[in-house]
Amino acid sequence: QRRKLRFSVNGEFKILQVADMHFANGAKTQCQNVLPSQRAHCSDLNTTIFMSRVIAAEKPDLIVFTGDNIFGFDVKDALKSINAAFAPAIASKIPWVAILGNHDQESTFTRQQVMNHIVKLPNTLSQVNPPEAAHYIDGFGNYNLQIHGAADSKLQNKSVLNLYFLDSGDYSSVPYMEGYDWIKTSQQFWFDRTSKRLKREYNAKPNPQEGIAPGLAYFHIPLPEFLSFDSKNATKGVRQEGTSAASTNSGFFTTLIARGDVKSVFVGHDHVNDFCGELKGLNLCYGGGFGYHAYGKAGWERRARVVVVDLNKKRKGKWGAVKSIKTWKRLDDKHLSVIDSQVLWNNSANKLVVR
Amino acid sequence: QRRKLRFSVNGEFKILQVADMHFANGAKTQCQNVLPSQRAHCSDLNTTIFMSRVIAAEKPDLIVFTGDNIFGFDVKDALKSINAAFAPAIASKIPWVAILGNHDQESTFTRQQVMNHIVKLPNTLSQVNPPEAAHYIDGFGNYNLQIHGAADSKLQNKSVLNLYFLDSGDYSSVPYMEGYDWIKTSQQFWFDRTSKRLKREYNAKPNPQEGIAPGLAYFHIPLPEFLSFDSKNATKGVRQEGTSAASTNSGFFTTLIARGDVKSVFVGHDHVNDFCGELKGLNLCYGGGFGYHAYGKAGWERRARVVVVDLNKKRKGKWGAVKSIKTWKRLDDKHLSVIDSQVLWNNSANKLVVR
Repeated sequence: QRRKLRFSVNGEFKILQVADMHFANGAKTQCQNVLPSQRAHCSDLNTTIFMSRVIAAEKPDLIVFTGDNIFGFDVKDALKSINAAFAPAIASKIPWVAILGNHDQESTFTRQQVMNHIVKLPNTLSQVNPPEAAHYIDGFGNYNLQIHGAADSKLQNKSVLNLYFLDSGDYSSVPYMEGYDWIKTSQQFWFDRTSKRLKREYNAKPNPQEGIAPGLAYFHIPLPEFLSFDSKNATKGVRQEGTSAASTNSGFFTTLIARGDVKSVFVGHDHVNDFCGELKGLNLCYGGGFGYHAYGKAGWERRARVVVVDLNKKRKGKWGAVKSIKTWKRLDDKHLSVIDSQVLWNNSANKLVVR
Repeated sequence: QRRKLRFSVNGEFKILQVADMHFANGAKTQCQNVLPSQRAHCSDLNTTIFMSRVIAAEKPDLIVFTGDNIFGFDVKDALKSINAAFAPAIASKIPWVAILGNHDQESTFTRQQVMNHIVKLPNTLSQVNPPEAAHYIDGFGNYNLQIHGAADSKLQNKSVLNLYFLDSGDYSSVPYMEGYDWIKTSQQFWFDRTSKRLKREYNAKPNPQEGIAPGLAYFHIPLPEFLSFDSKNATKGVRQEGTSAASTNSGFFTTLIARGDVKSVFVGHDHVNDFCGELKGLNLCYGGGFGYHAYGKAGWERRARVVVVDLNKKRKGKWGAVKSIKTWKRLDDKHLSVIDSQVLWNNSANKLVVR
C-alpha cells in the first residue's frame, strides 16, 4: 500500500524540484560550463553534494526529479548511474518521485525500462503509469499524488493538494513535426478525468469541501506558452536562452486552464532559464538547471526550486484547506542562498470561478 | 441497424457540404447582404431553393451540414425551423448528417435537444454521440461514418474512407479564455482511439490492407491554424474576413497530424472565407457561406463545397482503395457555376509515413 502523504503539523508541505541532473558516471564525469577555478575538482559528485546539502537545508516533504536525471549518451552503466543519481534522495529517507526527460533513455535502457527501474528504488512514490489508464496512455511516468490535510484536522482524509506528473516524451515521431515531443491526447484525457474525479472526491461526503483543491503539474519539456515570457515580463527569475518546446501546440495549456485546479506548472529542459511567469492565471515556472554535467553558464550557480504550500488556520487552531503556494530557489553557493521568493497563488486573491 | 455507406459502382463517393444556413422562419425571414435587386424577393426560401438545385445538380452520396443550421435568435419555433432547414435534404432521400455550430442552441432548444431532434429526422445518419464514449465525451454531435469499398470489390467490407464529425461547441465557459469554444480533450481522445481502431480493422484479416484509410473531418469553428492562410498562400479560394477561432489552441491540429489519416478538415463559421490551405500535409478548408439569412457579401454568391473521393482501379477492373480526394465549390448563380477545383490529396504523391 503506497505511503499516504500529508501536510505537516505546522500546516505546511514543502517540495524540492531537481531539474536536469544529467548525471553520468560519478567522479569520473566532468562538469560543464563552470568557472576555471572550479574545473579541476568538479564532477558529478558536485551534483550529489549539492543535493545532499539542499535536502539537509530545506528538509522537504517530497523531492521531485523533473527529467534528464541521467545523460544517457555518456552513461557507461545505466543502472549504476540511475542509482547514483538518486542516491542522496534515497539516503535522506524523504519520499521522492521522478519523471523522464529526453535524455534518460539515451543509454542502454528504454524509457519504459528506466521507469520500471526507478519505481523499484527505495522511498520512491514514482509510478510507471496509472493502472486505470495503463492500457491507453502514451509515455511512461504519468501519475498523480494526493497530499492529505494535516493529521487530526477535518481534512485529514481529503486530498487538499494534488500533484500531477507527466511524461513530456523525448523527440517527435510525427512527420512534419520535427523537434521535441509533447504531452499527447491520451495523457491530457487522463489528466482531465483525474482532475474531475479528485474534485468529486473533494466535494463528496463525509466532510464535503467547496470548490476544487489546488494542484501543481511537473513535467520536463516546457509548453510553447513559456515563449511568452522574458526576463522583463516574468514574475521572477531570468530567461538566458530560448524555450525548446515542441514545434507544435499540444493544447495542454488549454486543458490545464479549462480544469482550473493546477495553479503552476514546473519544468526543466532549458537549464539557464529559471523564471516563473503567469499566463491566464496559470504560473509557468522553470526549475533552473541543477546538474554539473548538464550545460549551464559558468558563474551562474546551479540551482534548485522549492515550493511551499501553506494551509489555512481554522477556528480552534485546526488546519484547513490550502491558503497559499510560494516558491523560491536555492543556489549551490557557499550559503545555499535563497533567491526569487514569490507567492504563486493564494486562496483569497484568485477567486476563480470553479468548474 | 444504420445504413451502410459505400463507394458507388463508378468508384466514387461525393459529399456536399452545406455551411451556415442560419435558417430562421422561412418565407418571412429576410436575406442579409444581398444586392438591392435581390432584396425584394429574398428570404430563407432562397436557401431552400439553392439546396434543392445543388443537390439535383451534384447528386451527392452524402450531405453534410456543418453547423449554424438555424440562427436560434430569430427562430420562432425551433422544431419547425430545424425541420424546414433540412427539408430539401430529407426530400432528396440522400443520406445526410449534421453537426452543431454556435447558433443552433440560441432558440428554445439546448444543444442536446437540437441533436436529439436531428437524429430522429428521416434519412439522417447523424448521432448524438458515440455509444462507447457517451459517458465521457464533451459536446453533442460527435460521431464517425465508415465509407465501404465498392460493391463486389475485395474491399466491400472494409472502410476505405473515414469521416469524423465533431462538436466544436459554442462559446467558451472557461475564465480567461473569452470567445468561441473548442474541441475538448475528451473529444480528441475519442477521435484518437477511433482512428487507431479503424486502422487496426483496415489492417486486419480477412483481406488485410496496408497503411491507413484516408479520413476527412467536419466541424464548425475553424482551428487557430486557419489563421496562417490568406488569399495569397491559400491553395484555392479567398479570405475576406478574419478567422474566428477560439482564443486558445486546443491542440486538435496536432492530434490530427499525429494520427495522419485525416487529409482535410472542413469548417464553416466565417461565411466570406472559402479557401483551402495546406499546413504540414493537412488541408484546412472553409465551406463558404451557404445561407441567405447569414451574413455574407452582396454580389459574392452563396456557395457550397463538394468533395469527391475516387478509388483506384485494380487489375481485372475491380475497384481498390482511395486514389484521390478532390474538391470544388458550387455558386448559387444562374448556372450553379463550378469554381476552384483542386486535388486535396492523392495516394501516390503523399507517401506519408504510416503511424
